[in-house]
Amino acid sequence: MAKDKLKVRRPRAETPRGFRDYFGTEVTERNRMLATITEVYHRYGFDPLESSAVETVEALGKFLPDVDRPNEGVFAWLDEDAWVALRYDLTAPLARVFAQHRNDLPSPYRRYAVGPVWRNEKPGPGRFRQFYQCDADTVGTPTVAADAEICAMLSDALEATGIPRGDYQVKLNNRKVLNGIMEVIGVLDPADPDAHAARRGIVLRAIDKLDRLGDAGVRALLGEGRKDESGDFTQGAQLSAEQAEIVMGFMAAKRDTGAATAARLRELVTGSDTGAEGVNELETMAELLDASGYGPDRILIDPAVVRGLGYYTGPVYEAELTFEIRDEKGRPRQFGSVAGGGRYDDLVKRFTGQSVPATGVSIGVDRLLAALTAKGRAGMVAEGPVVVTAMDRARMADYQRMVAELRNAGIRAEVFLGGGNMGKQLKYADARNSPVAVIEGEDEQARGVVQLKDLALGARLAAAIETNEEWKAQPAQMEVPRAELVAEVRRMMARREADS
Amino acid sequence: MAKDKLKVRRPRAETPRGFRDYFGTEVTERNRMLATITEVYHRYGFDPLESSAVETVEALGKFLPDVDRPNEGVFAWLDEDAWVALRYDLTAPLARVFAQHRNDLPSPYRRYAVGPVWRNEKPGPGRFRQFYQCDADTVGTPTVAADAEICAMLSDALEATGIPRGDYQVKLNNRKVLNGIMEVIGVLDPADPDAHAARRGIVLRAIDKLDRLGDAGVRALLGEGRKDESGDFTQGAQLSAEQAEIVMGFMAAKRDTGAATAARLRELVTGSDTGAEGVNELETMAELLDASGYGPDRILIDPAVVRGLGYYTGPVYEAELTFEIRDEKGRPRQFGSVAGGGRYDDLVKRFTGQSVPATGVSIGVDRLLAALTAKGRAGMVAEGPVVVTAMDRARMADYQRMVAELRNAGIRAEVFLGGGNMGKQLKYADARNSPVAVIEGEDEQARGVVQLKDLALGARLAAAIETNEEWKAQPAQMEVPRAELVAEVRRMMARREADS
Repeated sequence: MAKDKLKVRRPRAETPRGFRDYFGTEVTERNRMLATITEVYHRYGFDPLESSAVETVEALGKFLPDVDRPNEGVFAWLDEDAWVALRYDLTAPLARVFAQHRNDLPSPYRRYAVGPVWRNEKPGPGRFRQFYQCDADTVGTPTVAADAEICAMLSDALEATGIPRGDYQVKLNNRKVLNGIMEVIGVLDPADPDAHAARRGIVLRAIDKLDRLGDAGVRALLGEGRKDESGDFTQGAQLSAEQAEIVMGFMAAKRDTGAATAARLRELVTGSDTGAEGVNELETMAELLDASGYGPDRILIDPAVVRGLGYYTGPVYEAELTFEIRDEKGRPRQFGSVAGGGRYDDLVKRFTGQSVPATGVSIGVDRLLAALTAKGRAGMVAEGPVVVTAMDRARMADYQRMVAELRNAGIRAEVFLGGGNMGKQLKYADARNSPVAVIEGEDEQARGVVQLKDLALGARLAAAIETNEEWKAQPAQMEVPRAELVAEVRRMMARREADS
Repeated sequence: MAKDKLKVRRPRAETPRGFRDYFGTEVTERNRMLATITEVYHRYGFDPLESSAVETVEALGKFLPDVDRPNEGVFAWLDEDAWVALRYDLTAPLARVFAQHRNDLPSPYRRYAVGPVWRNEKPGPGRFRQFYQCDADTVGTPTVAADAEICAMLSDALEATGIPRGDYQVKLNNRKVLNGIMEVIGVLDPADPDAHAARRGIVLRAIDKLDRLGDAGVRALLGEGRKDESGDFTQGAQLSAEQAEIVMGFMAAKRDTGAATAARLRELVTGSDTGAEGVNELETMAELLDASGYGPDRILIDPAVVRGLGYYTGPVYEAELTFEIRDEKGRPRQFGSVAGGGRYDDLVKRFTGQSVPATGVSIGVDRLLAALTAKGRAGMVAEGPVVVTAMDRARMADYQRMVAELRNAGIRAEVFLGGGNMGKQLKYADARNSPVAVIEGEDEQARGVVQLKDLALGARLAAAIETNEEWKAQPAQMEVPRAELVAEVRRMMARREADS
């Protein structure tokens, strides 16, 4: 007996920890949003690329195995004698693809990519180990015109998905300006770039904490250090008050116009060639964008954008949604960032030894879809199919003929194929969010008619109508000649659309 | 020095063995084909499902680990204490999803799924370890009306992608008829289904080899056995000549009409209840399909369809393309199968203990795309963007303004962002398959005009035009006022479309 029991132990029907499935409109609405975005990318001359989901660990780079099993952050396994892994983003594969196929690709190479990526991280609420990314990058040109183009494209893409102008801002910053600041405060020496790395790290991390710690906390971290509430002490960057002032000034440099902001930044980086170059780049981008109609109402210089400043090498950009939503406790809060990117000039060099300039943006697919849902632009319940009920199993051929007629007229339709009486069939139709149920029993067949049940109207009537007269005036069920099935269903669905 | 050399060893820019990347139209044409197919599925009431790419090895089932590392056929790795793997098809995940979410899903549950699957198999020419599948299944109903519906849907989907009626056939068979044959020849005992398993296996394998071995070879395998050219002997099923005749008769049972084929099958399975049930199912399906307009010109009973008979439990169906293509040596050959499916009633039972009837089809995405390319319905070169050349770097803002105008008019356009003279820029435009190049140098700017170069026409003219008069009559380059840029480009592209 024990052995028999062991034999019938059943597998658990569960996704692995941190993975999930997507159903119905979750799939179609994401696909529709991505199709809208990639149509904009296509209009900008970007070509699609779908790279392999599996890469050699060697090509992914960041995660080279220094232990037997390189599982830091990625899902990796040994394929015969080589470690391979699922891609963790779409940028590392782009660098590999460009290095591998550079002789066959146009230069500059504008490409977009959409697809799942995988992260071997601790899952949490709303935090999954497989999710979509949607990237666009231009590889092979150093001109910031490429960065400006991507900012304009991002702006167009957001508006195309249904985020109105005024409800988002694309914010621009530049790593070189920050480097200029670092030079001015003496923690970056152009002649010896590796010196002061630890103090630069402290400055970068302090800047990144402005939101959380406020002015005083950041000033403490820029100076001697900071003791937090628990009493733990974080070592500071040991800047003088004057030096710290320059860093604080950088983050607060935003003025009413791009020109004024640039002028303020130019003051702050006085004496640094790199800093001046960064300000020039910001000015050039603003000029190019203004010329093509992407003014500060859409894209503006904002030195408070620091996300990614540690990673990128030149322009950095981020799209923020500026409208308020309610959080789970009903409190208003800003939606925040839905896309970010910038210039990274050394990714391809790993493979070829040659520096290949590149710039690109990644849209947070799940976040943008959540934003569209919050704006009522997505998250709608899908219209279900017209359901032809099956009163009499033996007459399935008649019911199939009906759905074939409806489908040939472009109407989504299905026959009920399960078991059960009329009540169960109508319940199924309701659960499917079906607009219309079709009923043809023995009596109807004999008289050459069908009953059409307007399920949505029926639900509304049941909730709202008070008198019998009203019910009769707007019947939720009607009898029509069999020959007029398609025309009548179409009419009911059109009325429903007009009502909603 | 040796140490320094080691340090700069560069990673190889290569996909792992058996994986590949897809570029440009390879991506868009597959997506377009899949969008067409899923639109048909949607019209039939099927809902999309996108399940996790990673499953527990336990849920995938077939590959339960009986060794430390379960790598037979799948890519698997240890995730903390559980083995997980990339899905190898879309059916095993459906069974897991249905078992996991059955209380929230409609019943019957019609779903379609599109996405990559992964196989840990030896790669070969044209045989990759990641490829797309496109499936549609109905879970939760035993009626063969569901099987018929899927056959009709498959037929509609093929026609929607561009395979004309007459160029394909959906062929129907039924596992129960084969089981009836097995009963009649004495290798299947309904009272003891496990008996004779070995001989049934030999019969199944023999049937499957009809194409390759011909009548005589199959007869040998059904009887004593067969010695192949190398002298190796394959044990036969030990059927008598009369018994073998019944098997051969089964495979050759196709007649001019479905009714005649069914009648012939009914003769062959005389005495077997299962066989009679299978014939009834085939008849019912043919009846339902005829009633909704899917006659034998699209869907027909063909007992020679044996693919999958070992796996499925009831109806089996397969879509074959019947037109000829040329193989790599220029010889005509039939295109063959592009989709297959059938009824499998026990996949969900593994999880829940309850038998859940299901039926479904899988389209071979790469094969169908190859077929459409062979028919000239896919494989076209994508139209590249209008390229605005950048004669003068300092005037990038003007060029950006031009592409913004073109894009706002819905025209795909880009500025040349690379380095190089006009010759290099026009070469780039050609490589991009650009329809029109826009040129505005100092002189043009001063006169308020732009040059438009019709690149496609230019190529044709260079090849075909013989006299100077003709050249002038249809110039490949024209000067137009700057203000008429968009209108003129649109006119040139419309003319191009009309010409092609």
